[in-house]
Amino acid sequence: MSIILGIDPGSRLTGFGIIESRGSKLRYLTSGCIRIDTTQDLAYRLKQIFTCVTQLIEEYQPDEFAIEQVFMGKNADSALKLGQARGSAIVAASMKELSVFEYAARAVKQAVTGRGGAEKEQVQHMVQVLLNLPGKPQADAADALAIAITHAYSSQNLVAQAGASQQKRGRLKVF
Amino acid sequence: MSIILGIDPGSRLTGFGIIESRGSKLRYLTSGCIRIDTTQDLAYRLKQIFTCVTQLIEEYQPDEFAIEQVFMGKNADSALKLGQARGSAIVAASMKELSVFEYAARAVKQAVTGRGGAEKEQVQHMVQVLLNLPGKPQADAADALAIAITHAYSSQNLVAQAGASQQKRGRLKVF
Repeated sequence: MSIILGIDPGSRLTGFGIIESRGSKLRYLTSGCIRIDTTQDLAYRLKQIFTCVTQLIEEYQPDEFAIEQVFMGKNADSALKLGQARGSAIVAASMKELSVFEYAARAVKQAVTGRGGAEKEQVQHMVQVLLNLPGKPQADAADALAIAITHAYSSQNLVAQAGASQQKRGRLKVF
Repeated sequence: MSIILGIDPGSRLTGFGIIESRGSKLRYLTSGCIRIDTTQDLAYRLKQIFTCVTQLIEEYQPDEFAIEQVFMGKNADSALKLGQARGSAIVAASMKELSVFEYAARAVKQAVTGRGGAEKEQVQHMVQVLLNLPGKPQADAADALAIAITHAYSSQNLVAQAGASQQKRGRLKVF
C-alpha cells in the first residue's frame, strides 16, 4: 500500500491530488488546488506553494511524490515562472525526504486515458471513473490526480518487473 | 546597520555574498558558491540550494535578501531550470521571513561599475575595490556580492528619500 501525492504546478494555480494505491485498487483521498494570490510579491507566492505542499505532506503522510515533467515551448518568461513554482513544490517534498518522480504530460494522458494526445476533459472524465468520484474534479486537481494515478500504475509495473531493473533513487522515467 | 545576503542563482552554480552595510560603509562578511552536484536528481539539487541558503541565513542572520531579476532570452529549457533554482533560494529566504528584493543585471552593473553594460571582469574588480578584498572573488560569488552591494546602495537612497515614497513590502524595483 502506498499513498501518492500528485502535483500539477503552475504560477497561478497549483493542483494537488492524493490517492492510495493498494495492489491494483486506487482510492481517492483528497484533491484541490492552491490558488496563488497574484497580488502578492513573488517571495510570498512561492512560500504559499511551499507551505501548502508541506502541510499536505504532514497531514496525509504520502510515501511518494509525482509531478509533471515539463517540456517548455517558446516562452522563456513563463518557463521561468513555472520553474519557480515547480522548484518550490519539489523542494518542499525533498525537505520531507519524499522520493520525487516525474512524468511527461503525454505519459500521464496515455496512462489515464490510453491516448497520449487526449483532451483535458477526457482526463477529467477518466480520473472521475478510475477513482469512482461522485463528480468531475476541478481541472488542475484532476491533472494532479492523473499524475498520482500514473505513478501508481508505474509502480505496479515496477513491482511486476522487479529484478529486471533497479528503480533509480528519487527519479524515474517510466515511459 | 543591516546585513544583506545577495544570491546569484544558477542550476549548476549558485553564488552567494554577505555584506554589512552601515551608512555609506560596506563590510565584507563572506561569499562563495554552492556547487550543485549535477550527478544527483533534481529534488536533491534543489534541496541542496534550499538547505545552503537556509544555513547561511541561520549563521549570518541577514536582514535582507537580494537576488538578480531575470529576463530570459530564447531558451525556455534553461529558463525552467533557472526558475527552479531561483524558486528554491527565494522560498528559503521567504520561509525565514526575509524581505526579498530583485535587481536587474543591468542595474547591478550600473550600481557597482557605473555602467549598465559592464563586463564580468569589471564587476569582479569593482567588488574587490568596494569591499576592500585582498583578491578577486570567484565570478559567481562576485555577482552575488554585487547584488548585495546594489541593495545596500538602494537602501541608502531610500533612507535619503524617506517620506517621499513608501517601500513596498518584500519587493522593490529601484532602477
